[in-house]
Amino acid sequence: MSEALRQFEAVVGKEWVFSSDEDVDLYRDSYSPFWHEPEERVPSAAVAPDAVEQVQQIVRIAGKYKIPLWTISTGKNLGYGGSRRTPSGTVVLDLKRMNRIIEVNDKNHYALVEPGVSYFDLYRHIQERGLKVWIDPPDPGWGSLIGNALERGGGYTPMRDHFDCHCGMEVVLANGDVVRTGMGALPNARTWQQYKYGFGPAVDGIFSQSNFGVVTKMGFWLLPEPEAYFSGTVMVPKEDDIHALVEIFARLLNSGVVQGTTSVLKTVDFGPPDPQLAAVRVGASTSDLERYVAQKGLGYWTLDLPFYGPSKVIAAQWEHAKEQFSWIPGVQFRDGASYTFPLTREAIEKIPEPRSAWNPEPHHVCDRRSVQPGPYVVFADHPDDRCRGARSDQGVRAGLSRSRIADRRASWSADLVVSSREPSSSSTSFLSSTISRRTVRNREIFRRLIKAAAEHGWGEYRTHTAFMDDIAEAYSYNNHALRRLHETLKDALDPDGILAPGKNGVWPKRLRRARA
Amino acid sequence: MSEALRQFEAVVGKEWVFSSDEDVDLYRDSYSPFWHEPEERVPSAAVAPDAVEQVQQIVRIAGKYKIPLWTISTGKNLGYGGSRRTPSGTVVLDLKRMNRIIEVNDKNHYALVEPGVSYFDLYRHIQERGLKVWIDPPDPGWGSLIGNALERGGGYTPMRDHFDCHCGMEVVLANGDVVRTGMGALPNARTWQQYKYGFGPAVDGIFSQSNFGVVTKMGFWLLPEPEAYFSGTVMVPKEDDIHALVEIFARLLNSGVVQGTTSVLKTVDFGPPDPQLAAVRVGASTSDLERYVAQKGLGYWTLDLPFYGPSKVIAAQWEHAKEQFSWIPGVQFRDGASYTFPLTREAIEKIPEPRSAWNPEPHHVCDRRSVQPGPYVVFADHPDDRCRGARSDQGVRAGLSRSRIADRRASWSADLVVSSREPSSSSTSFLSSTISRRTVRNREIFRRLIKAAAEHGWGEYRTHTAFMDDIAEAYSYNNHALRRLHETLKDALDPDGILAPGKNGVWPKRLRRARA
Repeated sequence: MSEALRQFEAVVGKEWVFSSDEDVDLYRDSYSPFWHEPEERVPSAAVAPDAVEQVQQIVRIAGKYKIPLWTISTGKNLGYGGSRRTPSGTVVLDLKRMNRIIEVNDKNHYALVEPGVSYFDLYRHIQERGLKVWIDPPDPGWGSLIGNALERGGGYTPMRDHFDCHCGMEVVLANGDVVRTGMGALPNARTWQQYKYGFGPAVDGIFSQSNFGVVTKMGFWLLPEPEAYFSGTVMVPKEDDIHALVEIFARLLNSGVVQGTTSVLKTVDFGPPDPQLAAVRVGASTSDLERYVAQKGLGYWTLDLPFYGPSKVIAAQWEHAKEQFSWIPGVQFRDGASYTFPLTREAIEKIPEPRSAWNPEPHHVCDRRSVQPGPYVVFADHPDDRCRGARSDQGVRAGLSRSRIADRRASWSADLVVSSREPSSSSTSFLSSTISRRTVRNREIFRRLIKAAAEHGWGEYRTHTAFMDDIAEAYSYNNHALRRLHETLKDALDPDGILAPGKNGVWPKRLRRARA
Repeated sequence: MSEALRQFEAVVGKEWVFSSDEDVDLYRDSYSPFWHEPEERVPSAAVAPDAVEQVQQIVRIAGKYKIPLWTISTGKNLGYGGSRRTPSGTVVLDLKRMNRIIEVNDKNHYALVEPGVSYFDLYRHIQERGLKVWIDPPDPGWGSLIGNALERGGGYTPMRDHFDCHCGMEVVLANGDVVRTGMGALPNARTWQQYKYGFGPAVDGIFSQSNFGVVTKMGFWLLPEPEAYFSGTVMVPKEDDIHALVEIFARLLNSGVVQGTTSVLKTVDFGPPDPQLAAVRVGASTSDLERYVAQKGLGYWTLDLPFYGPSKVIAAQWEHAKEQFSWIPGVQFRDGASYTFPLTREAIEKIPEPRSAWNPEPHHVCDRRSVQPGPYVVFADHPDDRCRGARSDQGVRAGLSRSRIADRRASWSADLVVSSREPSSSSTSFLSSTISRRTVRNREIFRRLIKAAAEHGWGEYRTHTAFMDDIAEAYSYNNHALRRLHETLKDALDPDGILAPGKNGVWPKRLRRARA
């Protein structure tokens, strides 16, 4: 190890190799579900290259000394393990210094960036130049575009599937080779960020949620700045209305009439705070709750539809949507926020708190998060059961009951995030109000949730590093054929097993037995 | 070989193994650019399994005897090599009998099918049941949904990127193992056709345009039947207007205001037949042609914008589009076809010939093709230079000049197919009016086009099997790093090199030297 660190220093300079306890401590996962328990793993050192060539050299050195590398870029990855967990002796490969914005094109609407570029960085770059494109930030704007997309994060605008909206990669393989995918394999390619596939097998996907390479550049499609945004609210009175609500909504989404992401919320759980409600809820039946929301002039379920585009088109889309939802007896509609772009600084300041998550201005996104600071909120995202449930009515209903598994044993919440062509992901978060509650018991509940979900045919799409094997275990069709395929690829691409061993349940050969 | 054929017979039955000259002749490529030349390769035999388990057994037998398999499904693959080319002794693995439509869901808008299912089959299935979903056929409706998507074919509706609109695969690997990708790796998955990625590395892409496995099932997203279709025509008067036309169009596409595929056509090349024009064209300058089209009340460039959705929304979208294009002096607009759905049989019959390619009713799509029969038309699709050029204005212009490379040496045509988030693919087709012209000279021109394109940073996205190595050769960044990665994957997944050796330029180890 010490020899490897010396060689890393020769590549990146002494000041960019970190091995003191003080420095390495910064790479710990502040919200580890094993915090202060023996299972908490801490990296041994970190190295921060500035260029692709340095990444190539680092990977080669790591291969020579069989030192595992855990790649991170920028952002905090809170809830998903921060920079950590892997066999002891791991070195964090920290790409934060590779933060170049190589191109932003507002005629063909794309960007090409390095891993250290955050949503904030790209947003500022665009604002400073007055370019007419929008980014699609997830809730926290401090994260890496590349990191978020590779882990299959999402945002709120029509570009919300960040991995699907990428176009072209540059990847350093474990052997130190640099590959460009898609049209990037053509020297001097003119269309690297315009056409995804290139010629022959399309390899990009295998570098997402994986440990097959180190992505050093990635292209992203951007949304042309829309003329307007409008939010229309749909409220339906009965619990059973969820079925019709979701069916109509799916049709609008899959037709492209609604293009963003939104949530179906149970008003009594997510509506405005109301002391009266607390009293009503004790022992309340469904019909009690239906009566309560009716008295308040609210719906049992609330759905905010986001629209982006020319004002005239939005007006027609909202009118069409209202016609469709009018099949549900007792449905109510409300016009919500309405903006035309570009917003002035003053107009931005007037957007009420918590500011809309859709807002592509990341400082708001950050505000939204920062109004609820403290570990318990972060923990809400933590051993986060991001489960892909079915969007069918049964799926929605069962998704809700499923959330009840945990309801007497920990604080929790569930909402239905529905976005185009994705199932209702019933995102169950743990809201634990004290730190002491977040350890053993919650881990146990979380593992039960994974199993209960799998029994229903649902699976998680990402998780904290601590639970990756648990979730990979559930994807077991044909005696884990997909995992065996992943392992075949891992052995071919990283025979020494130096890249992020165990990430997403994929272990290199020499450590596979340890998993079992 | 004879022992292998006997074992194939034991798996699928004697009647589904073909080895007589008469039978095998049907698997020849009727439009081979090497037809009747010594280079034309003909398969040795064919085997047609009926089920996944039979595919597994066939692959294992082929592995044992090191017999190359070339997988086809249904359709003709005209222009792209039919069933052919590979080392001698190849057996065609013909999946046409696996033609089950496993599920069509018109609430969540997807289908799950086997490789032998054609667009016709799925269309009829949907019509017979009155389901409210549309398929997205490419020009010929006889092809396989799976075959077309794996080769990255496209259609005309918002679901036009067939590979991107797939969701979930079942694949038989060279070792006979069956893998289900995405959520399908979860036993009893409820969301296999709803969420693409599942958990961990996303492998689907590596089975497209590849020889890494045999895809035996695939899910596809479908478009909910729209309320209406409308086509609006934009005509601009000057050759130089192409730049503004494409820029505005790109913004509309990338904003989702226009959701289908369309073409920018040069009126003098693609307008209605006109004997007067033939006279004008001889030695005509650009300004002559501009004057000519102006006199005719036409535009120099013509763009038909397709709209799908609620009538009110379409009206607003078209109005917005007209406002945007009004920046171009002298622009003209015409309202084109307008339909509301479902169409009656009578209304369908009234659609003028050639019937719209957008029409999701494949019998029309077929009509469109069948009105121009004969090899010369098919040859128009043949050594088809499907080049991904840049959508930037320079790209468009250069794409046009580039087409001129060939113009004195063969009949040709070029149009610009522009679809959302794709570059203008300047699709250059050879139109050769006699069979004799389609051999040596055209091959030579085609190879020159590949090189000329690569020098400009453009590359082909698919081609006839005869030119796969030529095109793979152009994707040479970093000493062919991507091809070396493809080869690493090939060696890991198919060490005996039995699956479609050489497909898309990916050869197994033992045949790699032959390529060089």
